[in-house]
Amino acid sequence: MILLFTDFGLEGPYIGQVKAVLQEAAPGVPVIDMVSDAPPFDAEASAYLLAALAPAYPTGSVILAVVDPGVGGERAALVLEADGRWYVGPDNGLFALVTRRADAKRIWQATWRPDVLSASFHGRDLFAPLAAAIARGQRPPAGCEAAALTIGADWPDERDRVIYVDRFGNLMTGRRAAALPAESRLRCGPASLRRARTFGDVARGQAFWYENANGLVEIAVNQGRADRTLGLGVGDAIAIETGEEAEG
Amino acid sequence: MILLFTDFGLEGPYIGQVKAVLQEAAPGVPVIDMVSDAPPFDAEASAYLLAALAPAYPTGSVILAVVDPGVGGERAALVLEADGRWYVGPDNGLFALVTRRADAKRIWQATWRPDVLSASFHGRDLFAPLAAAIARGQRPPAGCEAAALTIGADWPDERDRVIYVDRFGNLMTGRRAAALPAESRLRCGPASLRRARTFGDVARGQAFWYENANGLVEIAVNQGRADRTLGLGVGDAIAIETGEEAEG
Amino acid sequence: MILLFTDFGLEGPYIGQVKAVLQEAAPGVPVIDMVSDAPPFDAEASAYLLAALAPAYPTGSVILAVVDPGVGGERAALVLEADGRWYVGPDNGLFALVTRRADAKRIWQATWRPDVLSASFHGRDLFAPLAAAIARGQRPPAGCEAAALTIGADWPDERDRVIYVDRFGNLMTGRRAAALPAESRLRCGPASLRRARTFGDVARGQAFWYENANGLVEIAVNQGRADRTLGLGVGDAIAIETGEEAEG
Repeated sequence: MILLFTDFGLEGPYIGQVKAVLQEAAPGVPVIDMVSDAPPFDAEASAYLLAALAPAYPTGSVILAVVDPGVGGERAALVLEADGRWYVGPDNGLFALVTRRADAKRIWQATWRPDVLSASFHGRDLFAPLAAAIARGQRPPAGCEAAALTIGADWPDERDRVIYVDRFGNLMTGRRAAALPAESRLRCGPASLRRARTFGDVARGQAFWYENANGLVEIAVNQGRADRTLGLGVGDAIAIETGEEAEG
Repeated sequence: MILLFTDFGLEGPYIGQVKAVLQEAAPGVPVIDMVSDAPPFDAEASAYLLAALAPAYPTGSVILAVVDPGVGGERAALVLEADGRWYVGPDNGLFALVTRRADAKRIWQATWRPDVLSASFHGRDLFAPLAAAIARGQRPPAGCEAAALTIGADWPDERDRVIYVDRFGNLMTGRRAAALPAESRLRCGPASLRRARTFGDVARGQAFWYENANGLVEIAVNQGRADRTLGLGVGDAIAIETGEEAEG
Repeated sequence: MILLFTDFGLEGPYIGQVKAVLQEAAPGVPVIDMVSDAPPFDAEASAYLLAALAPAYPTGSVILAVVDPGVGGERAALVLEADGRWYVGPDNGLFALVTRRADAKRIWQATWRPDVLSASFHGRDLFAPLAAAIARGQRPPAGCEAAALTIGADWPDERDRVIYVDRFGNLMTGRRAAALPAESRLRCGPASLRRARTFGDVARGQAFWYENANGLVEIAVNQGRADRTLGLGVGDAIAIETGEEAEG
């Protein structure tokens, strides 16, 4: 299957043009919208979101990822294989965390270019044909040269910031929860939040943090909006307080 | 076909994970987004919306319905057949009206659980595999026991409240229009609205009510927004005034 | 493939009902959301958007286009073939520009009506079955009579107004860029904007205009929102200043 990870939205005129290219070039391959409201222009926050979500999708999938403020500029086009999933998109750090966390990875720069390449819509003109080629079994596609990632090499393993706000106002962070002690508290601004297992474990209207279904530390309010309750958005910092600190 | 009725939205990171599970477990079955912006956390309003929309879809369809504020708690997972359509989702009243209005129905509690079950995303981990099993022909799936609905037994046949606001600001109510006399008026707050057949039958900017394409009483403003004009939203009460009352 | 061009949105209860009809009547035909947030009730702005986007889709496609404030009234239902693409929708000017710009075109009025036709949802009840029939190879469908467009005959070839605001706040206009000299400036309100090739060619936060990936003059701000920066929306006028004027 081909998965679309973009900041294009779904209702506007963009994603349909991408899907038409995929349908023509890889007919019969299922196309699924993975994320369509990635933080706009924010390849760094998106990189942590992409790395958290990818394991929920089957190996062999082709992920077309486009958060690309530098479209039409000099940035390269990348093709990657990481832990059995394939990725296509811009070389702007978007794949930095997927790559770093992968046990096995191969990276190429795509030198192929279409006959007609718009200045502002490489998702349609460049990345979609590459994704379709991979989906058809060209792994990697013709016109790919071995390459290495550079952007994002200095980004931290865990990003202690809000990376995504969902439609309910829940705040996903770039910190993975698995290694955190149960008693860890999360500080954001003046608030210090305790951990819970799920929404129903706290009172209605109460803020808490929990390990979300993709393994990330997420801030939520039971049947409320954490973004408004806490006044937080993408980019705002959090701090994890492990047991000893929290007791102080 | 599998139909998705949720409050997950489409652009965010949730529905894609559900679709990937369906694609893997029931390849080739068409998946259609039925409603993705059901009133969040509001199983009661959603129950009336679901019951109104279901007849527009073919019998044999599998409806995966998730409006589930109690996710991760004790509520059961249900599988239903009602008038030839199949339903999967939480036991929180969401299926109360579909069931009550059905001529033929069978209800099970699903006792099957996946190897890994997140605390907050049963749509992906529990309900999607069940829906896929039904779509593959397991009707009911393995691990289902006969059950009965309890929540929603005291909800009224018709809900004289706004249950959904669409993108145009039209206000759907939980009252079905078929039985109402043509001269019925609808009272909401200080306004008393007359019935019309369709938008073009009233002046631009005028509020009215009509029987929408799914049989519900709906409040609208021709080429305007009824929600803003009338200051109404989900949960607000309406009252039907039949001919005699309206004359008074 | 069948393409959906509407103002229905995707998350609400409408487009799913259309897709279920298409799935039943033309199983196996891919359905792609082309535009779901066309300017609501605005057939004229939508007509310029549709004409700009259609060439990005393959010939043979069937475009179901519904921006239809007059639904339930007297307006006719149209079927068109224009430059190898097929169109179905209301006779309200929506196809005026597609038709005018086509080298080859045929136009019919559809006289077929379904057994049950709602007053407010012809997209589901009338246009979807017609689109499915075309997709199945009935070109034109049964019950079509040769017709001519009337509405939109007096609309200009180029519409020097904003016709669409995308999710990033970019402002698409109804003016095609191909014929404009590179040094053309664009005036909107007090602002006079220079042309650039793409976003990265101007400073962050700067407003400019460029030829978008569908050939239209579009106003944008690099990593910002042109709609808010310039205070413009659908319907607002622009003016192109060619070199000589701009020097004055």
